[in-house]
Amino acid sequence: MSAYQQLKKIFNKIADLRHVEAIADWDEQTMMPQGGGEARAKALAALQNHIHEILIDRRNGELIEQAKAEQLADSWDQANLRWMEKIYQEAACLPADLVQKRAEASLRCVQAWRVMRSENNWKDFQPLLAELFNYIKEAADIQAETFQLSPYDTLIDSYSPGFNQSTITPILKELKTTLPSLIQKIIEKQKNEKIISFQGSFPASQQRNLGLSLMRVLGFDFNHGRLDISHHPFCGGVPTDVRITTRYNEKEFITSAMAICHETGHARYEQGLPKDWLTQPVGRALGMAVHESQSLLVEMQACRSQEFMDVLAKAVIREFGEQPGFTAKNLHIHYTQVKPSYIRVDADEVTYPLHIILRYELEQKLFNNELTIADLPDAWNESMIKYFNLSTKDNFKDGVMQDVHWPSGIFGYFPAYTLGALIAAQLFAAAIKADKTILPQIGKGDFSPLFAWLGKHIHAQGSSVGYQQLLLDATGEELRSSYFLDHIQQRYL
Amino acid sequence: MSAYQQLKKIFNKIADLRHVEAIADWDEQTMMPQGGGEARAKALAALQNHIHEILIDRRNGELIEQAKAEQLADSWDQANLRWMEKIYQEAACLPADLVQKRAEASLRCVQAWRVMRSENNWKDFQPLLAELFNYIKEAADIQAETFQLSPYDTLIDSYSPGFNQSTITPILKELKTTLPSLIQKIIEKQKNEKIISFQGSFPASQQRNLGLSLMRVLGFDFNHGRLDISHHPFCGGVPTDVRITTRYNEKEFITSAMAICHETGHARYEQGLPKDWLTQPVGRALGMAVHESQSLLVEMQACRSQEFMDVLAKAVIREFGEQPGFTAKNLHIHYTQVKPSYIRVDADEVTYPLHIILRYELEQKLFNNELTIADLPDAWNESMIKYFNLSTKDNFKDGVMQDVHWPSGIFGYFPAYTLGALIAAQLFAAAIKADKTILPQIGKGDFSPLFAWLGKHIHAQGSSVGYQQLLLDATGEELRSSYFLDHIQQRYL
Repeated sequence: MSAYQQLKKIFNKIADLRHVEAIADWDEQTMMPQGGGEARAKALAALQNHIHEILIDRRNGELIEQAKAEQLADSWDQANLRWMEKIYQEAACLPADLVQKRAEASLRCVQAWRVMRSENNWKDFQPLLAELFNYIKEAADIQAETFQLSPYDTLIDSYSPGFNQSTITPILKELKTTLPSLIQKIIEKQKNEKIISFQGSFPASQQRNLGLSLMRVLGFDFNHGRLDISHHPFCGGVPTDVRITTRYNEKEFITSAMAICHETGHARYEQGLPKDWLTQPVGRALGMAVHESQSLLVEMQACRSQEFMDVLAKAVIREFGEQPGFTAKNLHIHYTQVKPSYIRVDADEVTYPLHIILRYELEQKLFNNELTIADLPDAWNESMIKYFNLSTKDNFKDGVMQDVHWPSGIFGYFPAYTLGALIAAQLFAAAIKADKTILPQIGKGDFSPLFAWLGKHIHAQGSSVGYQQLLLDATGEELRSSYFLDHIQQRYL
Repeated sequence: MSAYQQLKKIFNKIADLRHVEAIADWDEQTMMPQGGGEARAKALAALQNHIHEILIDRRNGELIEQAKAEQLADSWDQANLRWMEKIYQEAACLPADLVQKRAEASLRCVQAWRVMRSENNWKDFQPLLAELFNYIKEAADIQAETFQLSPYDTLIDSYSPGFNQSTITPILKELKTTLPSLIQKIIEKQKNEKIISFQGSFPASQQRNLGLSLMRVLGFDFNHGRLDISHHPFCGGVPTDVRITTRYNEKEFITSAMAICHETGHARYEQGLPKDWLTQPVGRALGMAVHESQSLLVEMQACRSQEFMDVLAKAVIREFGEQPGFTAKNLHIHYTQVKPSYIRVDADEVTYPLHIILRYELEQKLFNNELTIADLPDAWNESMIKYFNLSTKDNFKDGVMQDVHWPSGIFGYFPAYTLGALIAAQLFAAAIKADKTILPQIGKGDFSPLFAWLGKHIHAQGSSVGYQQLLLDATGEELRSSYFLDHIQQRYL
């Protein structure tokens, strides 16, 4: 067996173990009774630890060197080997005790966060976050040396491969200079819009039925996935069995309906990955920025379009009966309200990038040692005033403590959300230009032309090329912010 | 770290990995969409294979030898070490390629069985079962040499530790000679019973509510477990998170209600295992015969008692409204119908042991080379005529092909069901003698005195002593069939 074949076998085994991990992780968030939590956390940690050990085996490093000399003919195999090397190096360069300490600190921090956020207790939370950040930084410093990148770029690249500050900063700068005045104009315009409130309550079981009907419209493959409830919506499981979740607020249905469209966007990407490569690195989705582009393309570009509102109105009426507010026009008004707010996850698509820019700038300063963890609340407050004219002074829970990312040890991830929104806008513009039937068919509840295009240009590509090549092949251009800004202009002004 | 401490760490890790396996296995049977099956089977096989490799590491054998010299003071530690040795030897004595071939043959056979049973296709099924049996026999021969037992005794002991043919055969012989005439008498007597049919249909959601209310009565800990639906009812998960399942036939509710009581019996055992030892061999349940005793004690002894029928009738009326048939007396008649039948899993408690005896005798002959797999249908038919006066000639699906055990490679397991019934009868008799409040409190829907007794004498004991000692400590006697036969006499005649 060639060295490369041996590596394929090892990564295949790792994928199998990660499959079981993914299901147990989904179970923890959807099915597990609370009392099972402690033993489950321990069991999952043992499995993760074990997978890590398999991955960092020195022999893998030697096999990678041998495989590089084997001169693979196929470009997918070549890309696969490059991913193997990246994954191996990322893990193997770290000392085992640092990995362990980082994992423990992250568990402590996120568990404390769950309690302390609701108590608005920054004081007791801060030392835990500071401790965790030290381990994150220490690991990033080591990885940075391995990959010859800056520590923060290393982290960005680990979530959104190929991206770094030199590509992200100019793009976000354009948004930063353009969005504030756009937002003012939109708010001014929306003052004159007449919005009709929805009447009554919306039982979870009926919201679920509405969600399932939208998933069917979006071509979700129920033979390879399912919909459940969790505290935070997510897309988990494995490509052959994609588990998406949402939550229901019986006072309104529009949040869960659109959250389901969003997660279905993620799910279709997973379900559309190349079948022959599912247990190899090259067969995976291409990082979080591209993943987010698929969910946002479905949610923001396609499902908030005027065209789709007809389909949605009919589905809503089918489930909840007639109401004056259940018109395509009124639904569209509900789904396009723009308002500066404290909480990122509740933000509209126009103000959302400013939430990301705020976090990106703080993360940059943390890694440049311009800020410490202790400085974060004041710095957060300053930025909130600057970008939103909202103060978070002493309001930690709606400020610096609002996201689960930092307490989980996830730094460098946030840019993926806005990069995803930009990629989504650029892809959607290219798609509807390439196939003129896409938009009219969406208006008829037929997403097959859209997903034919996405399947071919994105889903089936897996990680066979970098995001730059992917975008170039699909749209003929490099990533630019203008498609997103044009989209905002068109929809809102 | 002492050798024993090192072993504890290894078995702790194995338990953690088995935890994740158990959840993914539960998921496969309850939640997984069909299309996820192939990849899941592969992922689970990889994990099992991996656990097997960790277990059979030669160093474990050396550690066990060293630990034996360490002279552990605590009896639980001593028992724990004995289990470690048994578990290690059972696995480590087998050649890796035999384990692999056996697993593959079992998968092929059980997958074929799912299709061929419904087609009544013995002809194509037979070679697959014969191939599998050869591997089972080959492995049992090797293990028999390791443990100095006969091959069939080795298998019995692997499911029901401490049991073997020399203990089982005399006990079953008593049943074999006593039951047939008892059954005739009972059938004669029941001819005069007036049974009132239930009216209408019984929606699954309401049957589930009924089941949940029975689980609450039985003290199921919902903070450490849940109830779901699967094709075959089972008790899975882990002691900190016990997953029981059932299925619903909307034409009647009595099957699901009692199946839930049965699985809750299993679950209470798991939930009552000693907290400090849950990830060690000594902290596990003591094999399948004792496990089955806990489910049958709850289902057959407690929940089919006259006393419980009052509680059940009230719960049924609460869920489905009043009906002439919803009396304690009529429910008891429904739950005590005796009738010879083809299918083991549908059999009543009086005829059930004859189904087991039939299988036990065939298994003995298979391992003694008195029968081959090809002879099974005829031998099955002969025994069915002898014990039930029912022919299964050419009716394979209700005969030799009815159980999932053999196609899964499980031989030597069947005795556990009837041993469990006998243990249940003996324990229940001892319990209600020791605490006179147990039966009257069951009549009031209060199972706490019963479970206090079971918790102390069975659940909290884990695998710290053998079944003989367990029974002796709990009942003052060795296992005997008379308690079961007295119980049948009392309830049915």
